[in-house]
Amino acid sequence: MAIDRVITFLDAHRSVFEEQLKTLLRIPSVSAQSERDNDTRAAAEFVRKDLATIGLNEVALIETKRHPLVYAEWLDAPGQPTILIYGHYDVQPAEPLEPWNQPDPFEPVIRDGNIYARGATDDKGQMFTHLKALEGWMKTVGSLPINVKVLIEGEEEIGGKNLEIFVAENREKLACDYVVISDTSQFALGLPAITYGLKGLAYFELIVHGAKTDLHSGMFGGAVANPLNVLATILASLMGPDGKVRIEGFYDPVRPLLDWERADFAKLPFSEAEFQAKLGVTSLVGEEGYTTLERKWARPTCDVHGLYGGYSGEGPKTVLPCKAGAKLSFRLVPDQDPLAVAEQFKAHVAKVCPPGVTYEIKEHHGAPAVLVGVDSPGVHAAVRAIEAGFGTRPIFMREGGSIPVVGLFKTQLGVDTLLLGWGQDDDNLHGPNEKFSLDDFHRGIKASAHLLAEFTRD
Amino acid sequence: MAIDRVITFLDAHRSVFEEQLKTLLRIPSVSAQSERDNDTRAAAEFVRKDLATIGLNEVALIETKRHPLVYAEWLDAPGQPTILIYGHYDVQPAEPLEPWNQPDPFEPVIRDGNIYARGATDDKGQMFTHLKALEGWMKTVGSLPINVKVLIEGEEEIGGKNLEIFVAENREKLACDYVVISDTSQFALGLPAITYGLKGLAYFELIVHGAKTDLHSGMFGGAVANPLNVLATILASLMGPDGKVRIEGFYDPVRPLLDWERADFAKLPFSEAEFQAKLGVTSLVGEEGYTTLERKWARPTCDVHGLYGGYSGEGPKTVLPCKAGAKLSFRLVPDQDPLAVAEQFKAHVAKVCPPGVTYEIKEHHGAPAVLVGVDSPGVHAAVRAIEAGFGTRPIFMREGGSIPVVGLFKTQLGVDTLLLGWGQDDDNLHGPNEKFSLDDFHRGIKASAHLLAEFTRD
Repeated sequence: MAIDRVITFLDAHRSVFEEQLKTLLRIPSVSAQSERDNDTRAAAEFVRKDLATIGLNEVALIETKRHPLVYAEWLDAPGQPTILIYGHYDVQPAEPLEPWNQPDPFEPVIRDGNIYARGATDDKGQMFTHLKALEGWMKTVGSLPINVKVLIEGEEEIGGKNLEIFVAENREKLACDYVVISDTSQFALGLPAITYGLKGLAYFELIVHGAKTDLHSGMFGGAVANPLNVLATILASLMGPDGKVRIEGFYDPVRPLLDWERADFAKLPFSEAEFQAKLGVTSLVGEEGYTTLERKWARPTCDVHGLYGGYSGEGPKTVLPCKAGAKLSFRLVPDQDPLAVAEQFKAHVAKVCPPGVTYEIKEHHGAPAVLVGVDSPGVHAAVRAIEAGFGTRPIFMREGGSIPVVGLFKTQLGVDTLLLGWGQDDDNLHGPNEKFSLDDFHRGIKASAHLLAEFTRD
Repeated sequence: MAIDRVITFLDAHRSVFEEQLKTLLRIPSVSAQSERDNDTRAAAEFVRKDLATIGLNEVALIETKRHPLVYAEWLDAPGQPTILIYGHYDVQPAEPLEPWNQPDPFEPVIRDGNIYARGATDDKGQMFTHLKALEGWMKTVGSLPINVKVLIEGEEEIGGKNLEIFVAENREKLACDYVVISDTSQFALGLPAITYGLKGLAYFELIVHGAKTDLHSGMFGGAVANPLNVLATILASLMGPDGKVRIEGFYDPVRPLLDWERADFAKLPFSEAEFQAKLGVTSLVGEEGYTTLERKWARPTCDVHGLYGGYSGEGPKTVLPCKAGAKLSFRLVPDQDPLAVAEQFKAHVAKVCPPGVTYEIKEHHGAPAVLVGVDSPGVHAAVRAIEAGFGTRPIFMREGGSIPVVGLFKTQLGVDTLLLGWGQDDDNLHGPNEKFSLDDFHRGIKASAHLLAEFTRD
């Protein structure tokens, strides 16, 4: 059978694929840092070249106002379905650098069967599995069993708007039956999963301004508002000790967990004690009335991502700073609307902000949550492909992360996305020592190769 | 009269003194920054040389475990009182640099009669007035009318312990009738003041630790405590919307303002509206039931000086950080004990800190508040000297700043300190664009020269 020849090819090229992945990981394509713009472009160029070498058609770098898109297609399977493979070549900033166990997060290190580097799992390593699966088919069979479109972007980590613009302007070009994305995690080692739900996101930066200049806290303290104290007061008001967000109207549209979901989640092999020990926290906390999995997957949250203001250098300094800021976000669940949450957040800050300061709120990016039906031909094909690639049947799970494009593809192309994650939940994506299992890398490639076959119509 | 010759000399040397001050200000003697240690020593050396050139005796750099002390004395006025002039040659960090209106805070700029530089008023410029007054006497009369000891340190801005050790070990050598310090402000332009009260200080750094590594806020948010959210919660708990510190026992030892103080403060030409406009704040805030001057001078406060943790670079990053920190201090009034406040603060944090995190509290430095009696021969001499130097009679005020040495001299030497401040309250000490009025510089020199004469006994 054709698939057997493909798998033989994939097995024979394991080390070639690993070296190619290393080369891609060496490119510090941090989309958030404008001084890295050339590197970000270099990563796009790498992906474009790889797609051209594989033998896809219409391979192109598509310019945008910021980072380019990479597009390719192979549409020579008339009567067969079409999938759109989406991924991103940009990565999160690697900072802070000290906690990394390697000198350079962009010089991959292999240890205990994992490849360590910024972007290893999110999303370079996972995205690359699909390219290698396409290569397997093209280099052996010389064709693909279904029609495939590939769209790889470079602004995922900054919530850039250029993909959205491109998709909206190219709905016909991108038409497909399903989108396939590998940018999530398996449930656990040896427990691959199909992710049918994602949280949404509403991300803000809150900047509080006090006096027009920094002041001496002895001479002025107690007489004027301190933006740092005020910022703490506002941030503390966002969540109660019961773990609930205290913003008016925030929970109104929240869709409750269904009975089957709570029952299925409870059956999963998940130990709260092991989870706690792995993270090294003294206890697990969160919204009252929910299990850890329910909190992670299906309840909205509020996290501060960064605090800045005043003096944080060596030694004490008794300054009363004129400015303080925080980056924070809300993770959303169906059917919360990020725009409505932005309005609720702004109204809340207006209500709780004490006098004596001004503030500004920057809205970084937002996306609604996603829920995909689990009973469809595409989901069934994915179940069979993962079983073939990983040797075990996938479970169904939800995810706390946000992949805004899933909502975009639903809205613009009218299609569901299959979230086939090859990562592990301790892969440290967005943190130091990000990694990706090389076994999962190769199993992912195989599952993707099988997926193309499983999608064929008789 | 001798004093007339001195004053003539001082008038003739205005530009010489200004150039010397500039040279001193060019030395970036930031005691908190260890990479500046050589500069800090260079400032000490500058002061030592100046005292030697003036003609004082026993001029010496005294080594400590960190920054050296400078000592000098002139004790050839038998039967006359002895004063100890104290000052400091170290300065606050100049950061942040952007708000400065000059490229280098250590390259003095003269504008509108003010000299702008880090340390201009705190305390290089003010400290230097006394050296120039001594020079005036020595270079004209050839002697001083009273006995003088000079002790200039380099760890004032970091609350270093080495001055304390030296004073405790040299009580006999430093014996005097009064300490004289110029490290405070006048009440306003043309309204010189004697400061009879200072606030104390208790300074802490609070560091909150969560998981053992940074996490992805989507995958882990809502399931583990976020140190940044927790830090905000703890900081917000320190003060109520009424401006009162909400730590148990904090106010118990607070000595209430006396009726004469409230009456005198109320008579001072102080416009809350002008104060507000000068600072550029939308309103003045503070502890309910007190005027702005009362809050500034005589009520305890709590200010956060710095916040750090997570990502504060360009663009959004959805990290759930493993660590967050804050620098904060309480300004204290009589009779609050900094050690007792430290215990109260620690007990408070232990009480309000939510589960799921650990924390550490670093104690930076502390000092009790000070009140000096206003009816003594030394205060009377200072009133006459300031009237002679500034042409107007000083008022009595308190100050929100902390000068820990005042308590040290009281405890170790048993003497009161005369706080004769030549600065202005908009001199931006500790902030960007620190300045010192050159008129005040020269009036301060004259007042100091008069002070030596006014102290003589018949």
